[in-house]
Amino acid sequence: MTAANSGTTEVYIDFLCPYAWRGVELAAVLRAEGEPFTLRHFSLTQGNHPENAGKDAPVWWLTDQPLGEGDRFQQASLSAFLAAQAAARQGEEAAWAFTLALFRAYHERRQPLEEATFAGAAQEAGLDMERWSADCRDESGLRVSLRADLTEAAEIGVFGTPTFVLPDGSAAYYRFENLTRDVTEARRWWTLYGEVLHSGAGIATIKRARKRPALRT
Amino acid sequence: MTAANSGTTEVYIDFLCPYAWRGVELAAVLRAEGEPFTLRHFSLTQGNHPENAGKDAPVWWLTDQPLGEGDRFQQASLSAFLAAQAAARQGEEAAWAFTLALFRAYHERRQPLEEATFAGAAQEAGLDMERWSADCRDESGLRVSLRADLTEAAEIGVFGTPTFVLPDGSAAYYRFENLTRDVTEARRWWTLYGEVLHSGAGIATIKRARKRPALRT
Repeated sequence: MTAANSGTTEVYIDFLCPYAWRGVELAAVLRAEGEPFTLRHFSLTQGNHPENAGKDAPVWWLTDQPLGEGDRFQQASLSAFLAAQAAARQGEEAAWAFTLALFRAYHERRQPLEEATFAGAAQEAGLDMERWSADCRDESGLRVSLRADLTEAAEIGVFGTPTFVLPDGSAAYYRFENLTRDVTEARRWWTLYGEVLHSGAGIATIKRARKRPALRT
Repeated sequence: MTAANSGTTEVYIDFLCPYAWRGVELAAVLRAEGEPFTLRHFSLTQGNHPENAGKDAPVWWLTDQPLGEGDRFQQASLSAFLAAQAAARQGEEAAWAFTLALFRAYHERRQPLEEATFAGAAQEAGLDMERWSADCRDESGLRVSLRADLTEAAEIGVFGTPTFVLPDGSAAYYRFENLTRDVTEARRWWTLYGEVLHSGAGIATIKRARKRPALRT
């Protein structure tokens, strides 16, 4: 199940995150060209939860929370993850089609992360709707598979989305502002990421500074 | 005084930081090949100070602190900055020679950041020792020039060292684990940094995940 064994690049996502959306669009372009990517779930709500701050391992898990509890981001992301886990039971292609459809619905068309949007994404993705609805009702089973993703993410040290885990196990958060569906551009952005991770410099971080107002001191 | 005007790359450093040391070694290699770099000071103690957390502009400034106050990192870094500001009064070459000598003394030879080490670095850098000693006694003047660096750093949004500010104003924290004094390698690592900052993706962050112990859940 780990990337180092599977020959695929894993991409950790949270539906809440516009950077994850752009990462998934990038991966989808390359995937269409035959490059293997696998979807994984990481919860930003869990990652940023105060009870998990400074802890070596999470003590607060999204998968332990009832659906109707927590703030709207927690509720939206948990239900979106479960809907996506249900979609994934119809296979890899179904998982990708659903994930792209849901990201676009939320980040492009500004639809809320709720049941009607999930159903729309499932329809758009061409899922077997009856099967998907039935799978959605297996909440405890879906929580088990979501928990497996969250556990792997914690072990890898994922802290934001998208995080790409390369087949050799190198993993980094890759945050970029622009969306591409162009193969040449996607390939260039992806190659650059690999070059950073594999550079002999041993690059740990490249993080842009954010300008602040001029000071008078 | 800003990088966008000067045609040089500014590198923000704190003597405490081993990553800043490697960044300065990299810059020194490229500088010897004719690429213009300028040294600037950013204080990690100030940047991480609890009183500055979440603030748009710093309220706690290293330059407002007496030399003998605060923890040993605060004291060491303030006195090192002032010694370097004094060295810089003997010109750009003197500033570089002193800075490299002091970084190597502290990070390579594990000498403490204190007066004897500063004097050793000044000697090694070939400074006019009498002039340097006299300049070191102009503490209030040195604090003014240090404050100018810290102010620019705050405006740029520097949060760690080394941060490189390119002539076009792009700025990012560039953290890497390995030391190079090889021109070809240095050029490769430096080119990669520029490619990340100038990529059409609009890259904000590439940050490696740090593995955590395996979980049993």
